[in-house]
Amino acid sequence: MASPVFLGLDFGTESVRALLVDAKGNEIGLATSPFPHGQIIDHLPGSQQPLPPLSAFQNPRDWLSSAAKATRAALRKANIEGDAVVGIGVDFTSCTMLPTKSDGTPLCLLDEFASDPFAWPKLWKHHGAQKQTDRINEVARARREPLMDRYGGVIGLEWFFPKVLETLEKSPKVYRATDVWLEAGDWFVWQLVGGTASNLSRSTCQAGYKGMWSATDGFPNPAFLKAIHPQLENVVATKMPGQLVPPGVAAGGLTKQMAKKFGLKEDTPISAAIIDAHAGVPGAGAATPGTLVMVMGTSSCHMLNSDVERNIPGVAGVVKDGILPGFYGYETGQAAVGDAFDWLKKLTGQKDFLELGRDAANLPPGSNGVLCVDWLNGCRTPLMNGELKGAFVGLGLQHRPAHLYRSLLEGSAFGLKWIVELLREGGVEVRKFIATGGLPHHNPLVVQVYADVLGETILVHPSKQGPALGAAILGSLAAGAFPSPNAAIRAMAMKSENIATYKPIKSNRKVYDSLYLEYRRLGEFLSSRDK
Amino acid sequence: MASPVFLGLDFGTESVRALLVDAKGNEIGLATSPFPHGQIIDHLPGSQQPLPPLSAFQNPRDWLSSAAKATRAALRKANIEGDAVVGIGVDFTSCTMLPTKSDGTPLCLLDEFASDPFAWPKLWKHHGAQKQTDRINEVARARREPLMDRYGGVIGLEWFFPKVLETLEKSPKVYRATDVWLEAGDWFVWQLVGGTASNLSRSTCQAGYKGMWSATDGFPNPAFLKAIHPQLENVVATKMPGQLVPPGVAAGGLTKQMAKKFGLKEDTPISAAIIDAHAGVPGAGAATPGTLVMVMGTSSCHMLNSDVERNIPGVAGVVKDGILPGFYGYETGQAAVGDAFDWLKKLTGQKDFLELGRDAANLPPGSNGVLCVDWLNGCRTPLMNGELKGAFVGLGLQHRPAHLYRSLLEGSAFGLKWIVELLREGGVEVRKFIATGGLPHHNPLVVQVYADVLGETILVHPSKQGPALGAAILGSLAAGAFPSPNAAIRAMAMKSENIATYKPIKSNRKVYDSLYLEYRRLGEFLSSRDK
Repeated sequence: MASPVFLGLDFGTESVRALLVDAKGNEIGLATSPFPHGQIIDHLPGSQQPLPPLSAFQNPRDWLSSAAKATRAALRKANIEGDAVVGIGVDFTSCTMLPTKSDGTPLCLLDEFASDPFAWPKLWKHHGAQKQTDRINEVARARREPLMDRYGGVIGLEWFFPKVLETLEKSPKVYRATDVWLEAGDWFVWQLVGGTASNLSRSTCQAGYKGMWSATDGFPNPAFLKAIHPQLENVVATKMPGQLVPPGVAAGGLTKQMAKKFGLKEDTPISAAIIDAHAGVPGAGAATPGTLVMVMGTSSCHMLNSDVERNIPGVAGVVKDGILPGFYGYETGQAAVGDAFDWLKKLTGQKDFLELGRDAANLPPGSNGVLCVDWLNGCRTPLMNGELKGAFVGLGLQHRPAHLYRSLLEGSAFGLKWIVELLREGGVEVRKFIATGGLPHHNPLVVQVYADVLGETILVHPSKQGPALGAAILGSLAAGAFPSPNAAIRAMAMKSENIATYKPIKSNRKVYDSLYLEYRRLGEFLSSRDK
Repeated sequence: MASPVFLGLDFGTESVRALLVDAKGNEIGLATSPFPHGQIIDHLPGSQQPLPPLSAFQNPRDWLSSAAKATRAALRKANIEGDAVVGIGVDFTSCTMLPTKSDGTPLCLLDEFASDPFAWPKLWKHHGAQKQTDRINEVARARREPLMDRYGGVIGLEWFFPKVLETLEKSPKVYRATDVWLEAGDWFVWQLVGGTASNLSRSTCQAGYKGMWSATDGFPNPAFLKAIHPQLENVVATKMPGQLVPPGVAAGGLTKQMAKKFGLKEDTPISAAIIDAHAGVPGAGAATPGTLVMVMGTSSCHMLNSDVERNIPGVAGVVKDGILPGFYGYETGQAAVGDAFDWLKKLTGQKDFLELGRDAANLPPGSNGVLCVDWLNGCRTPLMNGELKGAFVGLGLQHRPAHLYRSLLEGSAFGLKWIVELLREGGVEVRKFIATGGLPHHNPLVVQVYADVLGETILVHPSKQGPALGAAILGSLAAGAFPSPNAAIRAMAMKSENIATYKPIKSNRKVYDSLYLEYRRLGEFLSSRDK
């Protein structure tokens, strides 16, 4: 028999990647397949009717067809039979969600509803529910709902219930016709494993981070929901069937029909879904609790597994079994990282980061007096305020673009240090730091500045397919191929020869410790301006 | 007899301009003559010995020879005889000062001292006296010297006594050999009118703004000077002979020898000297008290004549007869204006101000949330702190260079509004606003923003030779050609057909009133950082 192979299906906004990995972490096949309809932003398929502004939908048929296509292509590249695949993991954007009938048929695929935008899956970035989000936050605060403590006091615009409420208010017909509201990742897994709505597996990750669910309290209680909107009172009982399953635990096995479609073996176990960013945690080799995985890109998502549950004001979400079974998953973030660097590059008329980075690397810590607060797109953790803005102070006629750029890297590092302090002061240990995502590979200076500001060693994980690898690892856990998440991650995602190590430069530490206090003071001033 | 003509000699850092003006303000002849030795920065003439850093000297022979050359050239251009010139005014950089023997011979022109840098005239921008300036400030504060109130509590690095003290400490030999310490403008006038050292005319303008002199208290008292340095105790009595004379009052008449050198008539009356920037006040047509003349360039100097004397913390200097005879002259300033605009242009990689200005002009007041404090080169009035730095806050990913540029213009305007409020709250009326200097002609947007922020009409005076015209007006006063400064200025500097008028746009006012408060709050925060 062939040695076991695991499939990670990594759903992005425009395409899905299929990655085949063996039990030693060798990536033996990779293929990407774009969604034929991509993001549906301007008008629905077959219609010229313009969609409301801030809309973003997807076509559920794309998910199945593209995933099957990518899987078959990856098998061909790996030159293996589908029989070799013994476990499947799925990561998905979130909260991407949809309304279906009780048999799982998306409402948008029924003629009756095809022309109603609210029958279509709302993509994570669909921003039509601002009013609904405001209302939910107001009601939750007025009622002092304890669930708010888990989310740093703020429910997000992109989350599950605002999206449900938007449809209830804007398309009551669709709302009434809906039997099942669910995350797209859960829908996809449901299609693969079959079964009735009451048995469908809802990921504790999606539910916990985007659906206001917790292991202790479940989904929001009817009284709270009723206070938001009378018709929402029983939505959980009547329109959200299913059971909560952690990522890494099998939701079921592949149906005959889907096995045929994907070119895989019937009954292959499939893990409950996970949010794409969160899949990066096992994917980056974070095997032990207390490892902060910094997924750095346009924005940054910093995630951590811990043995302990602590409600820390400002931490966006803490979810039991949210990332890996058996741990409390913490999620924090910085709203503008690579985006902010690109902005500065463009603002200062630079062609690329080459000269800017070289010039900035030669400047001393502290950028000759320029101090930046990195809130160019608001502050996610810990202030959870998208309205906050960034700043540069300490500017003099002698300062060049490189001074602003270095101070922006330093400001980003101070923002991260604040998050780490917040976790530690809240009783959550942070012992190890792994950077992943595209940015750390392209921008060694930012990793070094992070290491210096934190005073901690940072490992840069080499996988360019962190979430897909994480999904494959969850597939291996669902298949029972390893005795523990720790063992699976150690075996599949810690090929240490490829890991780059950035050690803090001691002499920079003192400067940065004092500048960090100035950053906090400036941040305090800036947030007081916003009131 | 030819109609009377007045000569204004305008001494800059690199050259001197001679402007001939008739009694109706027609500019009939203009010529510029560079100083053969320019600024002496690297080494003394005839020496290869490098000068100490921050040094800047001039050659006194250049002043006489270049002024004579420029005057003769201006007469030729005007096609008039020297006889037609009936009054001469002189404006000079300040504090540019030198040590001489009792007959007026500069020490640097004696073989014995020619190789000692401290025997040479120190140019205004000579910055070698930092330690001495610090010491004078410390002693003055410790003794609570009342004169500090007139200067906003700070004695400047470029002023007269720091430069004297530097020579006393660094070249005691030169200090001992000096019979007369004086401003270069006063020295030049002395050479033209002759006479003994005890009769030489010291300008109340230079003495008041740069020499810690006041009409009431005279120069600093011996006890204060002794506390600074024992040998400085009697410097005023023993090494600063002469009488104080306001600009616009004759220091004497041209000697026969100088008349010949300049191609002018013997005994032509010459006004006491004035600082170059201050000559811009009459030159810009500010005839009445309460008119703020904003000389806008690299930095800005805002000057005002008033009927009343008020000591206002933060106002750099208030001097009786400091600008025109009979008025109290107030001087305030902003340390980076055109310089700061150039910095931003360069920082953002723009080729010129054309696109930046057009884009900024189309933005709404408030620059879509970006707020700037304009202290890119410190804050002159009112905080008198060169160490302060500038800032941009309210920055988001949507902001372009034009947002930063417009907010910089607005920040500059808020800085000016602060100065105007300071004067008004201190009891000094400010009724009228005239902008002059190069900047307002090239940059109409900044003048409009100033008008909107102040809520006041701003006139832009057309003369490109404001200081030279002012000097010529002072020459006319010295000649008694007009009954009052007011009459001279009305006749010679208010050709209203050329004056551009910027009226405030009412709808912008409310936005700016509220933003001004935010500017002040941000300024308060930034200056608290500096402590």
